[in-house]
Amino acid sequence: MIQVDQALAIVAANSSKMPVKKIKVAKALGYVLAETIYSPIDMPPFRQSAMDGYAFIHSDLTSLAVVGISQAGDYSNSTLEKNEAIRIYTGAYIPDAADTVVMQEHVTVKGGSITIDKVPPVTINVRNKGEQIEKGAVVLEKNTVISAAAVGFLAGLGIVTVKVYSKPKVGIIVTGNELVAVGKKLPKGKIYESNAVMLAAALKSVGINKPVIFKVKDSLKATAKVIESCLTQFDVILISGGISVGDYDFVKEALVQNGVEELFYKINQKPGKPLFFGKKEDKLVFALPGNPASSLTCFYVYVLAALKKRLGLTNIHLPKMSRKISAAYNNTTGKTLFLKGFYSDHDVRVLESQSSAMLNTFSTANCFITIPNDVTAIAANEEVTIIPFN
Amino acid sequence: MIQVDQALAIVAANSSKMPVKKIKVAKALGYVLAETIYSPIDMPPFRQSAMDGYAFIHSDLTSLAVVGISQAGDYSNSTLEKNEAIRIYTGAYIPDAADTVVMQEHVTVKGGSITIDKVPPVTINVRNKGEQIEKGAVVLEKNTVISAAAVGFLAGLGIVTVKVYSKPKVGIIVTGNELVAVGKKLPKGKIYESNAVMLAAALKSVGINKPVIFKVKDSLKATAKVIESCLTQFDVILISGGISVGDYDFVKEALVQNGVEELFYKINQKPGKPLFFGKKEDKLVFALPGNPASSLTCFYVYVLAALKKRLGLTNIHLPKMSRKISAAYNNTTGKTLFLKGFYSDHDVRVLESQSSAMLNTFSTANCFITIPNDVTAIAANEEVTIIPFN
Repeated sequence: MIQVDQALAIVAANSSKMPVKKIKVAKALGYVLAETIYSPIDMPPFRQSAMDGYAFIHSDLTSLAVVGISQAGDYSNSTLEKNEAIRIYTGAYIPDAADTVVMQEHVTVKGGSITIDKVPPVTINVRNKGEQIEKGAVVLEKNTVISAAAVGFLAGLGIVTVKVYSKPKVGIIVTGNELVAVGKKLPKGKIYESNAVMLAAALKSVGINKPVIFKVKDSLKATAKVIESCLTQFDVILISGGISVGDYDFVKEALVQNGVEELFYKINQKPGKPLFFGKKEDKLVFALPGNPASSLTCFYVYVLAALKKRLGLTNIHLPKMSRKISAAYNNTTGKTLFLKGFYSDHDVRVLESQSSAMLNTFSTANCFITIPNDVTAIAANEEVTIIPFN
Repeated sequence: MIQVDQALAIVAANSSKMPVKKIKVAKALGYVLAETIYSPIDMPPFRQSAMDGYAFIHSDLTSLAVVGISQAGDYSNSTLEKNEAIRIYTGAYIPDAADTVVMQEHVTVKGGSITIDKVPPVTINVRNKGEQIEKGAVVLEKNTVISAAAVGFLAGLGIVTVKVYSKPKVGIIVTGNELVAVGKKLPKGKIYESNAVMLAAALKSVGINKPVIFKVKDSLKATAKVIESCLTQFDVILISGGISVGDYDFVKEALVQNGVEELFYKINQKPGKPLFFGKKEDKLVFALPGNPASSLTCFYVYVLAALKKRLGLTNIHLPKMSRKISAAYNNTTGKTLFLKGFYSDHDVRVLESQSSAMLNTFSTANCFITIPNDVTAIAANEEVTIIPFN
């Protein structure tokens, strides 16, 4: 049995980046760049007005004849004398001869002429060609996460596709003779299957929208066969249940038969102790405890980190914060605890019912409170580490 | 012109909840419950073993004959005498006669019998029927946001569908003769259209995956027509560009023609001053500034709040935090500033290039730093409010 920090380090060290693929910028949100992007154009691509107003040649003259117009999208490179001006709009092409734009609020219009009431400094309200970025300059570095702003930035430079790390394909294997599909009648001794839909929902938080779900009966042969098939199709395989030491838990043996190397099995934590992590080549296998709350805890703490690493992200863990705990808490387990908590701006409280079989509390919690295995008592108002989720 | 807080209040007050619809639990992540859910079953639905071990009748006897087996999923309600035990597995049905489960690590097996080496307290390792939740009890309250844990909780109770507030349908209207679609050649005086793809990417953060995008030339007639059509199809309409006071900005007039009531126009902030917010019945219209960084700022601060309100959420604003600013900053504008910043665990720094036309900085920022309009100077290391995004 290993400690939480060791387990986290093993997950990070064994999760490799996914292969690189090309993707349309419009679909690239949340992906990580696998190449540094250089600008194919100057931006702005031409000298642009930053205001609605009048473009002119800066001089002592303040009465100017309006001799032309430049709307956004136009290209009419009018010639211009010192006593002339061009009506111009925000974003429009500034004729090469002009050096300054006076905003419309600072002129008086009379017939075809203007008087500048407040002469602006020379070159004001002019956005120079390449001012935002020059052709050939770095737009975004390799390994940048593509945000909505980055999508806009790339699109604005006319970039259609970028190279990113692919999303891992995820397969979910659900084991257990006791499980009945939601929507069916519940025979005595059975329960509804809920871990697969829960994990599928949790996967959406990293943009993995379509995991494939397999249900398998508690038999070594059937379990080994579905694992064999999943290892050829998926990059990350989540197995729900069947990993404890009970006679009817075939998963570990089925993994061995398929050549999946064990990287760890069991972590000194509560809930989520019986977690198995293994790999075969670059395929990762997590066998999660069957108890729903344990399963989701292991997902947030370990599986999410592995998926983010495979996506190319560098910040792979849920961010930590600290809060004052509202009441004293004793840890008599010798294990690292991931308690379901509810935090506000000020403090955090441990929610009732921390049972690993129950999702009641998880449904209304907004964070884990982590209590290290070697901490036995925490006083009220002591600072604790919390990990917000959802 | 109004202040930021007034604008936020007007957005909240005028954004109504969407109509209620039924949705499958498996697809309900991120939706808000429009009904209180009561449990249709006891959970667990029967007395369940919490361990792999042996079920028996607690007494002085410690040598017991193993007379049956109960695997998870089985229902065989064996009769039992005080000197008998049933082999049982985690999650399996406990025969009605038994009152206690001893874990397998605490017995010695010999042929068809066991000796209990460590007698457990009576009723231990038994999960009682309805222990997690009783039939008819409240599962989740109305207005709860459906998390991955909630999906699992509902599914585990056999609940197939729930009533939620629908997602608003969003239409994006892009105005501007200067705009060219990404992928085409860029004629002089034109720029690439990037706001629509940027806003579409930003919408994904609230699970709105398929906004419909319309492009319209700078003409009053065309603009009015597309707004008329959008008002019949969408719940929230985003208009990009065309809202300033330039002669070629037809949007405001087109909104008036369509009976869209102005709720505010222009906010005392930078960037994003020329924001228009209006409504017609329950349809909301935001006309966003054309400058990409202004547009995205207004999206995060105002549009996102309106969408979350329509989705039924109560926490509609991006969460605020505070950090020490790494260098002094002066606000000579008299406006509330939304500066692009980068925060760490310790502090936050204002990034270079805050121009509203530029997305460079936005692409690498991870937060806004808000400086109130009435604050003129902030010293280095002073605490400031930040609003993380992405």
